[in-house]
Amino acid sequence: MDSSAPAEVDPDATGVSFRPAEATDLSELVSMLADDPLGAKREAWGDPLPLGYTEAFEAIRKDPNNELVVAVLGDHLVGMLQITFIPYLTYQGRWRALIEGVRIASNARSKGLGAAMIGWAVQRARDRNCVMVQLTTDRAREDALRFYERLGFVASHHGMKLHL
Amino acid sequence: MDSSAPAEVDPDATGVSFRPAEATDLSELVSMLADDPLGAKREAWGDPLPLGYTEAFEAIRKDPNNELVVAVLGDHLVGMLQITFIPYLTYQGRWRALIEGVRIASNARSKGLGAAMIGWAVQRARDRNCVMVQLTTDRAREDALRFYERLGFVASHHGMKLHL
Repeated sequence: MDSSAPAEVDPDATGVSFRPAEATDLSELVSMLADDPLGAKREAWGDPLPLGYTEAFEAIRKDPNNELVVAVLGDHLVGMLQITFIPYLTYQGRWRALIEGVRIASNARSKGLGAAMIGWAVQRARDRNCVMVQLTTDRAREDALRFYERLGFVASHHGMKLHL
Repeated sequence: MDSSAPAEVDPDATGVSFRPAEATDLSELVSMLADDPLGAKREAWGDPLPLGYTEAFEAIRKDPNNELVVAVLGDHLVGMLQITFIPYLTYQGRWRALIEGVRIASNARSKGLGAAMIGWAVQRARDRNCVMVQLTTDRAREDALRFYERLGFVASHHGMKLHL
């Protein structure tokens, strides 16, 4: 594996491990995105999958600054997230890591897997020498705010969206 | 200023135009970032510039999914922002545009230049077929929240940061 690629790790007693998503995971990942109160309104799982998912997966896979990561427990995909590494002039030219698309499978929650997954992503950001990890979380996801605050994130900003 | 630079537009009566930042702009851009209540604490303008700025500029310039853009009025740089285009599985595999590092020079404010610059960036996101434009703004910047709301952005999310 390329030394800049995320290493597979087994971080703690949850037994969960993390690896880059593969094309064969894609259908299950879209299913996970659709199995969510907000995602149900905007995703469209099907067999075959709508082409947009395949194209996005390829665009992510080819970009050294984007990593789509899956959490695996035993033989099962139990989570996913995407990290984007971005160079900025600010902070004297430091990189930041942006986390998006965080999901834990509905049958795998309340086991500490989400915390392990975010912890893995934060370590990945340290490995890439980032000054900061940032994310936005929908105000409708009340539990998510407290979850991220427990992990040390501070809601110092407004997260603003403009749909086109 | 180089009138042959790509993506130059003159959107309205403000007379402002936009073009990709060039290496010769860098010292002035860092000076603009440092001339800010929050930026003053974390930037370090100097001659020569700290190497981190030059390295970040080159990383941005080489990445087709990152654009550092300057606003020009007459012969003067009056603003800057960075757009990052990110492919996601969500929204059926659509791209998003992330705006960061938005500044208008302190002697050029209250002239509509900020609205023109964000309007330009939103159009750029449409040109790249993005589903959404997103940004975070510090809760300490009270005017910025209202500014973005006037432009149609909705503060639907918490913007969370973890400094490493």
